[in-house]
Amino acid sequence: MEISARNSLKATVKKVVAGSVNSEVTLELAPGIEVVAIITKSSADKLGLAEGKQAYAVIKASDVLIAVD
Amino acid sequence: MEISARNSLKATVKKVVAGSVNSEVTLELAPGIEVVAIITKSSADKLGLAEGKQAYAVIKASDVLIAVD
Amino acid sequence: MEISARNSLKATVKKVVAGSVNSEVTLELAPGIEVVAIITKSSADKLGLAEGKQAYAVIKASDVLIAVD
Amino acid sequence: MEISARNSLKATVKKVVAGSVNSEVTLELAPGIEVVAIITKSSADKLGLAEGKQAYAVIKASDVLIAVD
Amino acid sequence: MEISARNSLKATVKKVVAGSVNSEVTLELAPGIEVVAIITKSSADKLGLAEGKQAYAVIKASDVLIAVD
Amino acid sequence: MEISARNSLKATVKKVVAGSVNSEVTLELAPGIEVVAIITKSSADKLGLAEGKQAYAVIKASDVLIAVD
Repeated sequence: MEISARNSLKATVKKVVAGSVNSEVTLELAPGIEVVAIITKSSADKLGLAEGKQAYAVIKASDVLIAVD
Repeated sequence: MEISARNSLKATVKKVVAGSVNSEVTLELAPGIEVVAIITKSSADKLGLAEGKQAYAVIKASDVLIAVD
Repeated sequence: MEISARNSLKATVKKVVAGSVNSEVTLELAPGIEVVAIITKSSADKLGLAEGKQAYAVIKASDVLIAVD
Repeated sequence: MEISARNSLKATVKKVVAGSVNSEVTLELAPGIEVVAIITKSSADKLGLAEGKQAYAVIKASDVLIAVD
Repeated sequence: MEISARNSLKATVKKVVAGSVNSEVTLELAPGIEVVAIITKSSADKLGLAEGKQAYAVIKASDVLIAVD
Repeated sequence: MEISARNSLKATVKKVVAGSVNSEVTLELAPGIEVVAIITKSSADKLGLAEGKQAYAVIKASDVLIAVD
């Protein structure tokens, strides 16, 4: 399956913290570069997300804000 | 200014392509790891975004989807 | 590729209107039930979207609002 | 009230699962075509959402991603 | 029509700038407090948005970020 | 830090209700004009949000819908 989101970043699952409805998943893009995702617990389970698993962080270009110091 | 978004990733602006209303900005998080953002042209101008400038990719955790092969 | 979004609705592309940066894609879920998506023109091209092609409308559960009369 | 979102799909509420803060609402657009929404519990209550009620799934065109096999 | 978004702020349309696909609409919530919305041109037309018209800025609670100095 | 979101509205924190994962924060833009934000509890803590604190409601222009009666 290919998707229309502009950003599909290769990553490794570093941590999964399951809440009652949502899970917080930390993805490592490269040493020291991490992205946190909040997805439904049922999706995290369905995808079999667990520490060490290969995954992609999928982000729409219009959902990325830019900040400068 | 500090912001509530969970992800604030240090980056370097690699490319800015200005459209009529929006600009497409490519940010490099690390060699080979890029994130594309679409923001309004007026915001890109106001922030002075140009190749080589330091910036942050700001992304809400709930805007990150996860995919697996 | 499997994705964490809760909604992945089977559809047929009904119309693609290309703008300069974005394309407006009309997807038919069933006779008379249509969903309009705005994605970047480059994504529409990369996915080869054209009338009659099978595709999926992928929507995060938290992006669906509910209204009542 | 009329709204600027491009997609306003007629539906029937099929299931409401209330969490502590959010509720997960399953809407049926047509037999076999369902959309899941996560909205705040207080909104679900205010709208009186319950199985069998007529409602609309309101989705912005820019929140719809497209995937192909 | 009632909607599940938590924020529905009464406003007056102050300015509408039409692009080719999108329109930028400035809403005044109170003297000196303005919110800018980007919606599709077709939606702006359908709603008859024009300077002086009463309208509501509808914003999901999860789309509001908070910043502090 | 300056950010690309078009709307950055000066506000005062009126109420913070902490859930297990998320916090619901009510911001007052002016007497009688309030915006509710749902952010992660960890972000609310990190920013030190509490009743009376000055803050900004940061909202992307493309996340604002418009409704009319």
